[in-house]
Amino acid sequence: MTRLAALLMCSVLAAPALAQELRATGDLGVIVERATGSVLIVDQSERAAIGRVEGLGDLSHASLVFSPDERFAYLFGRDGGLSKIDILTQQVVGRVIQSGNSIGGAISDDGKLIAVANYEPGGVKIFDADTLEELAHIEADGKALGLEDAAGRKFVFSVWDTNETKIVDFSGAEPVVTTLSDIGANPYDALVTDDGRTYIAGLFGEDGLSAIDLWAEVPEVKRILPHYGRGQEEMPVYKMPHLEGWAKAGDQIVLPAVHHHEVLWVDARTLEETGRTAVHSQPVFAMARPGGRHVWVNFAHPENDTIQVIDTMTHEVIGEMVPGPAVLHMEFTSRGTEAWVSVRDENKVVIYDTTTLEPIGEIEVQSPSGIFFTARAHRLGL
Amino acid sequence: MTRLAALLMCSVLAAPALAQELRATGDLGVIVERATGSVLIVDQSERAAIGRVEGLGDLSHASLVFSPDERFAYLFGRDGGLSKIDILTQQVVGRVIQSGNSIGGAISDDGKLIAVANYEPGGVKIFDADTLEELAHIEADGKALGLEDAAGRKFVFSVWDTNETKIVDFSGAEPVVTTLSDIGANPYDALVTDDGRTYIAGLFGEDGLSAIDLWAEVPEVKRILPHYGRGQEEMPVYKMPHLEGWAKAGDQIVLPAVHHHEVLWVDARTLEETGRTAVHSQPVFAMARPGGRHVWVNFAHPENDTIQVIDTMTHEVIGEMVPGPAVLHMEFTSRGTEAWVSVRDENKVVIYDTTTLEPIGEIEVQSPSGIFFTARAHRLGL
Repeated sequence: MTRLAALLMCSVLAAPALAQELRATGDLGVIVERATGSVLIVDQSERAAIGRVEGLGDLSHASLVFSPDERFAYLFGRDGGLSKIDILTQQVVGRVIQSGNSIGGAISDDGKLIAVANYEPGGVKIFDADTLEELAHIEADGKALGLEDAAGRKFVFSVWDTNETKIVDFSGAEPVVTTLSDIGANPYDALVTDDGRTYIAGLFGEDGLSAIDLWAEVPEVKRILPHYGRGQEEMPVYKMPHLEGWAKAGDQIVLPAVHHHEVLWVDARTLEETGRTAVHSQPVFAMARPGGRHVWVNFAHPENDTIQVIDTMTHEVIGEMVPGPAVLHMEFTSRGTEAWVSVRDENKVVIYDTTTLEPIGEIEVQSPSGIFFTARAHRLGL
Repeated sequence: MTRLAALLMCSVLAAPALAQELRATGDLGVIVERATGSVLIVDQSERAAIGRVEGLGDLSHASLVFSPDERFAYLFGRDGGLSKIDILTQQVVGRVIQSGNSIGGAISDDGKLIAVANYEPGGVKIFDADTLEELAHIEADGKALGLEDAAGRKFVFSVWDTNETKIVDFSGAEPVVTTLSDIGANPYDALVTDDGRTYIAGLFGEDGLSAIDLWAEVPEVKRILPHYGRGQEEMPVYKMPHLEGWAKAGDQIVLPAVHHHEVLWVDARTLEETGRTAVHSQPVFAMARPGGRHVWVNFAHPENDTIQVIDTMTHEVIGEMVPGPAVLHMEFTSRGTEAWVSVRDENKVVIYDTTTLEPIGEIEVQSPSGIFFTARAHRLGL
């Protein structure tokens, strides 16, 4: 047995005891185990698993957000399950099946409201973060997606079928919904920049993307990158890139192109295209390393064993790693020193030093997909 | 007794018990009590104090940083004391007197190194974050200040007497020091933008400021804002504005002017001045609200009872509050929903709703100065 494996086994066995110990939560994380309906709780500093929580339903497409105190994870499962997990005691403390098919969620900036975007029935449901009691249902005539939190107790989401973006303001007694129509054909995902200002929706049904200035008195839709064709071929949904979060690299926004083997660079001020970088295959996530000048990219099936690292100043690929088959997700430590990478088909997460681009650790995880560190609790638009 | 006061008393009395309880650390904070050599530990979500730690020396000018797990606060006192406080157990777990006169410190991006900037003797000392063992002394021929962490296990600081900025790289076996000379006369403080890219030093001895692009292969000094005169009068040090942190508001950098009753706006890309806003008095801190389009400003003695709120898009003052005598510091919750404001001479911290600009809570604190929330653990350049 390797030393790493021995350490891992110790930490997994010790989990029930650790769950009663004093423990700070700033360096913890939750990794989705997509095949087994479970999540692994990890400690970044120890580079180790500290516990597993099971019985969470269908996690074949799942994401989560954290409470402001970094104690609770709200997990959104594909089956419409919303689970509240206490990562200190490593227990499920609340769970509701809130729809037939959920695509993701968000937490309000004050930490009081959980929003879930649903396909069936479409729209966004709002829950009390403490009790998981349903507080509101923001209806939509189609599949809701691209759901993001925004400053001032707001959520923003788009509707696939009706080509709309809705801004929902919960700062008053009753929610106020502002609908922006004609944002473009078939929005499929969206992001909010980390300054909270710009919402960008990717479009599946036409060329270009749409941007909304959330700081404007009257938010309006602005079409951007009109010369970026999203591709004409029919594409299965599992190949769609993810836009959410981590898109700002200095004064540029970086976007994975739909279907093209390219990453797009956008001027964060003018929202005009400033360049493209040819990459290994069809990108899924393009994520800016906190504090550094690099963007890390992973890729769609079947060429999804590879990560590329791009220099944001030269737009050139400066590094390439092959962590293993089915690299589904990556997450940076909060100040960017490490990147944790899910390798689903080898049941492991590989940890990279972001300066040397060398692996420095490994954790055994069952079919890992999304990796979520608690520092997300402190960021907008995730 | 008001309900607030009753709640406060309960939480203070309960502190010893709470110190043994499971508690997440993402929403905790530490407030410096400058007159009594103590700090108050607070819970943002409860808007309450949960404990006090005493015996920390001269805190008449003090700041602190947090470990990546948000468990430990490293406190830098004016008397050269470096204290390590466990905010879960509410105890001092390490303390060294590391110089005669310290001006502030930083923690490396990987959380392993604590750096302290000293006046006597000048230079920066580096300590092991676990043990507080001294690891290195980066010498300088004068007072070290404007000390910031930067990506890649680096620190950056400036030297008042020699007009230098030094970049210290700890990524290898031995520290490598790069010295940039002639950055301008008498740097007095500095900041790093939250993307980790730009270091800006304020100058006391001449007009303008100096900027360094930390992402450049060979970092160089660039003089900026040459038409900004820092004022000709002799000025006591207690009136100097603080530059560190929270300067980026969208695509602008906001700076409190030295001696002028103005806030300066700088284009974050070109580093050219884009405007000035006339304010109540001499600004001390100008801090961007996370997620919003506002900047909050406090002021120097004797007009330091006031806060102004400026709209970053119009550069106009849109709000003014008078929390009370001697408003020394403010801190936003991590996603910007609340601002906590120290009112030294009324022994309280007032909590504001950043949307309504109305007070929503108050905590009794002895002569409060700096307020530090644990979310700082996850940010660069603080």
